[in-house]
Amino acid sequence: MSCTSDPVQNMEKATGLIEKAAGGGARIILLQELFNSLYFCQQVDESNFDLAEEIPGPSTEILGNLARKLQVVIVASLFEYRAPGLYHNTAAVLDADGSYLGKYRKMHIPEDPGFHEKYYFTPGDLGYKVFNTRYAKIGVLICWDQWYPEAARITATMGADLLVYPTAIGGLSHESEEEMRDFVDAWEVIQRSHAIANGVFVASVNRTGTEGNIRFWGDSFVAGPFGKVLARAGSGDEILYCDIDPGTIDKQRRTWPYLRDRRIESYGPILQRFNTSDK
Amino acid sequence: MSCTSDPVQNMEKATGLIEKAAGGGARIILLQELFNSLYFCQQVDESNFDLAEEIPGPSTEILGNLARKLQVVIVASLFEYRAPGLYHNTAAVLDADGSYLGKYRKMHIPEDPGFHEKYYFTPGDLGYKVFNTRYAKIGVLICWDQWYPEAARITATMGADLLVYPTAIGGLSHESEEEMRDFVDAWEVIQRSHAIANGVFVASVNRTGTEGNIRFWGDSFVAGPFGKVLARAGSGDEILYCDIDPGTIDKQRRTWPYLRDRRIESYGPILQRFNTSDK
Repeated sequence: MSCTSDPVQNMEKATGLIEKAAGGGARIILLQELFNSLYFCQQVDESNFDLAEEIPGPSTEILGNLARKLQVVIVASLFEYRAPGLYHNTAAVLDADGSYLGKYRKMHIPEDPGFHEKYYFTPGDLGYKVFNTRYAKIGVLICWDQWYPEAARITATMGADLLVYPTAIGGLSHESEEEMRDFVDAWEVIQRSHAIANGVFVASVNRTGTEGNIRFWGDSFVAGPFGKVLARAGSGDEILYCDIDPGTIDKQRRTWPYLRDRRIESYGPILQRFNTSDK
Repeated sequence: MSCTSDPVQNMEKATGLIEKAAGGGARIILLQELFNSLYFCQQVDESNFDLAEEIPGPSTEILGNLARKLQVVIVASLFEYRAPGLYHNTAAVLDADGSYLGKYRKMHIPEDPGFHEKYYFTPGDLGYKVFNTRYAKIGVLICWDQWYPEAARITATMGADLLVYPTAIGGLSHESEEEMRDFVDAWEVIQRSHAIANGVFVASVNRTGTEGNIRFWGDSFVAGPFGKVLARAGSGDEILYCDIDPGTIDKQRRTWPYLRDRRIESYGPILQRFNTSDK
């Protein structure tokens, strides 16, 4: 969905869409990154820290009540106030009984033209997380994490059925239509590859609308455990439904048994920044 | 290219195609997996070990001489005899002056219906390899390795400009056209993802033709450092040319600076088989 500068309005829009999705049969409901504000990271502006809140806190209370009422799981990306001068980009998970299951703090933080996240967010220190919700084991990652096979691999091997990526990605106004298409394509390919490599479902939920210099491209999608796109949204506001069956994961991994053959004793160099010799 | 049961004939076909490719301007020439034999791993048959040879050995001598004559780099996948009862699936690299630069031994070995590689090949013990050839730094991986983001990541961080995957992959005769399309699609997506995640070129060279129960699907391709397919072959014998410029890699990685933000201190669980707790 697209957002405005009014957090109350964004929360009302989100809760309205959650009610509608639940009415349409949704059991696990994912919102895009920082759904209750604009993507404020376009600007480096100290006053934006006022948008942060504690987690659990006011937003998880609203969403927890809604989750219990509708008997749905909700994954909500929020701007976390942790302590004075210490903020994170965090996603909270509410189970279908309304309980707060915990949070994941975004591990990989970008800093690029239009995306000044390193100014706002301290990189996550909780590691990777899988939440055993009523309907599935959900591994939560956030936006920039989506470009890192390591994050997907570790989260999948923690037992996730489904990796979810709340996202706010778009093109800058000076970028051409062709560049945008290449970006969207690469963004979809890298996330489908996590489904393939790990034999898990992947759901990516992107912001829509234009804010300042960024056109968020939407294109939210769900991929099956061999990377096939099962459902794909357009560029505007949309509830995207998709049936997923964690029971199909074992079959997929029997046919394409990548997990059987990992050479874990050879992967040590992954823990290095780079592997050419510095003199 | 497709192969026959006669190694001499396969080598003649390969050297003829190498001469033709060099005449067409090729400087780095890649052959598919086990190019000088049938894909014998369809059968579990002890006599097939007779196909193996030492590396360096007779095939690298022929190809080294050809590389020097044509001033081209050749990457050649061969069945390696290492010691009595010890065999590997190995790729040798010949530099453009004809010198033997070294070899990579396939690290990830499949064992599936029609692909009984664990019977023939001991998993590689040389680790990952990048060869500093006259024209580019080439990271060599082989077939089943292509499904492992860890292998691509480590090889890329060893300084590769180009990852190459000699391959022998196809569908079994009982598999439907739709299954085949899904396989080819997933196979392309996972390898394009390595280009994207690492900002490197990727070239995948697949066997063609039908052998017994397997229809090798060809579809060799080259992807650029943002995963875009730059050239793609069909399902038959073909010389596929592609211009690549390692000088574009830094630009790509400036725009999408994934290597800057890796959380290497958090990747330890990659070294585990799985990360759920065993009791």
